[in-house]
This record gives sequence, C-alpha cells and structure tokens, in this order.
Amino acid sequence: MTDTVSPISTTSTLNAVDIAAVAGLAERIQSSPDVGATTWRASVSWERGLRSSASIREFAPIASDEPVSLGGTDTAPNPVEQLLAALGNCLAVGYAANATAAGVAIDRLRVEHEGDLDLQTFLGLDPDGHAGYTAIRATVDLDTDAPADVIDTLHRRVIATSPVGHTLGRAIPVEIDLA
Amino acid sequence: MTDTVSPISTTSTLNAVDIAAVAGLAERIQSSPDVGATTWRASVSWERGLRSSASIREFAPIASDEPVSLGGTDTAPNPVEQLLAALGNCLAVGYAANATAAGVAIDRLRVEHEGDLDLQTFLGLDPDGHAGYTAIRATVDLDTDAPADVIDTLHRRVIATSPVGHTLGRAIPVEIDLA
Repeated sequence: MTDTVSPISTTSTLNAVDIAAVAGLAERIQSSPDVGATTWRASVSWERGLRSSASIREFAPIASDEPVSLGGTDTAPNPVEQLLAALGNCLAVGYAANATAAGVAIDRLRVEHEGDLDLQTFLGLDPDGHAGYTAIRATVDLDTDAPADVIDTLHRRVIATSPVGHTLGRAIPVEIDLA
Repeated sequence: MTDTVSPISTTSTLNAVDIAAVAGLAERIQSSPDVGATTWRASVSWERGLRSSASIREFAPIASDEPVSLGGTDTAPNPVEQLLAALGNCLAVGYAANATAAGVAIDRLRVEHEGDLDLQTFLGLDPDGHAGYTAIRATVDLDTDAPADVIDTLHRRVIATSPVGHTLGRAIPVEIDLA
C-alpha cells in the first residue's frame, strides 16, 4: 500500500475524512489558542418511568431507558451503555482522523467495549461506594495494509488524544446543581 | 402533596416507575452480592469519514459524526456531546428511581449540561495534554410539590449513586487494545 508513505495532502479524500478542515482548525488554534477552548452542550428531558431523551443541537434525541430488571421498560440503551457508545465513537474518530493525517488507508474498523459496574451503590446498598464503572475495556479491530509499526504509532496517538478516553480515565470535576 | 409521606409501595405506579422491580433486584443483590456485578457492552463500527455508529443489544444504532470544522459531515451528535447525553440520561434515571422510592411525585424534570474541552490535545498541538473535558456542569430543573428538604435529600442521594456521574468524576482504568 503506497498510502502509508504519502505526504499529508490537503485535498486528500483518503478514508473520506476532510483532513484539510482538521489541519486548518489546528493551524487556527496554533496561532490563537483561545479558538481551541470549546464548550459542548446537551439537554435531557425525563419522559416518565426510567425513560428520558437527550437533545443535542438539531439532531434527533438520543433515547434512554433501563432494562425491566432495573425498573425500566427496555425501549432503548441505558445510560451506562451510552457511555461506552460515546467512547467507541470517539475512538473511531481518533483512528479515522489520525490515520488520514498519517496517510494510512483504513479498510474496516470496529471497536468492542465492555465495562464492569457493581449495582450495589446505585441501588443504595453501599452508600459510600463507587456507583460507576470500575473498569472499561475496548478492543480495536483495524483492517489496514499499513505496516505493524505504523499501526502501533497510530494506536498510541489515538490513545494519547482521545477526548472521551481521557475524560473517563481521569477524575473530572462534575458539578451537578439544582436550578 | 401527600405522596411525600407515603410509604414505598411495591404496587406503586408513581412516576410510572416499576419500583417493585428495583426493590426486588436490591433484595436479591443484598442476599447475593455477586448478582450486582454487571458487565455492559457496546460495539462501534466506523462508517467512513468521521462517521460511526454504536450498536447496543437489539436497539437502533447511535449515530456519530463531527461538525464540519472538525473534519466531519455534521450528520449526528459527536462523541463528547454523547457523553453529556449519557450523564443527563443517568441523572434522569437517578431522580426518577429515587424520587419514586421516597414517594415523591415528579411533575417535570429537565437537565441542562455543558462541558469545557480544549481541542489542542485532540489536534496534536499539546501531545502530553488532557484531551478530555476539564469540567462538566449539569443543572437540574425539577418540578415537584415536595418540600425543599425532601428535594435536597433526593438531590444528594442522586449524586451519591449516579453510575455515569461517578464514572466521569473519578479516574477509571480504561484499557484500549488492538485486536
């Protein structure tokens, strides 16, 4: 595969990623770091029971429910599953963007995730416990003709730059207030 | 409102929450703590560009894309927005379940979220930096006839038991491996 040694092209359509847009944004932030300071938003509405939906910009809401065993009606993924989805979608962006910047063509990319969570704290049985995931594992299945060392560099770069991965892997101040 | 002093009823349809299911699960976990140890899963498929979708059980996939300025085609919320959605949906579950257990009727519940994220690390401009959210804020707007002290107790209980809130607020081991 010759793509692995191609220079970054600002007109590239490799992987269908608009790498020129990414490079242009990086340049703007490099000259004006404030441009990189972003704030993202979501609104959630409770819909009775354990159902709710999250609205983000103009997109169709992301529905949420809980399995019947947890008191829900099982009409949608639950919030801890959605958290894994956010991680996987973030890793997919990271691979696609960084592979494209490195001239690596991706044939196929899948990520499988699992997370361990003890329900005792959520259910009030261990009031001072940790209600969240105690561990999250992701396995990336990447089909590409790139050499192993290029893939390894790509993988390390994705891990070093993943917004959702870093948010989960570090302690973030989460402030939850009543209006 | 008399609901605030009602005992927990296992036949309650308060808030349309099946609190009997939650109470039954808590009882089973109390007698067999291993029952509380759960593992949740999601699979993500890259769909070219910066688009991907996350599959969870039999549900419709959660679509993901990035804004045009970040190299995407802006067809869906991006992963860091999805992370806020997961938090809000989790808080909605927490309020609905704990309010119901406490006999509190919820008239309306909305949660607004925002998170601050510096794009420099994601874009490779600060290789050792923090790519994720540096802070997340949620504002809960709860309409209920319950007295202020009951609402305050409910709020503290939700915060103390939120699976997604705890996952974000603490450093979790996130292991990302190549297949």
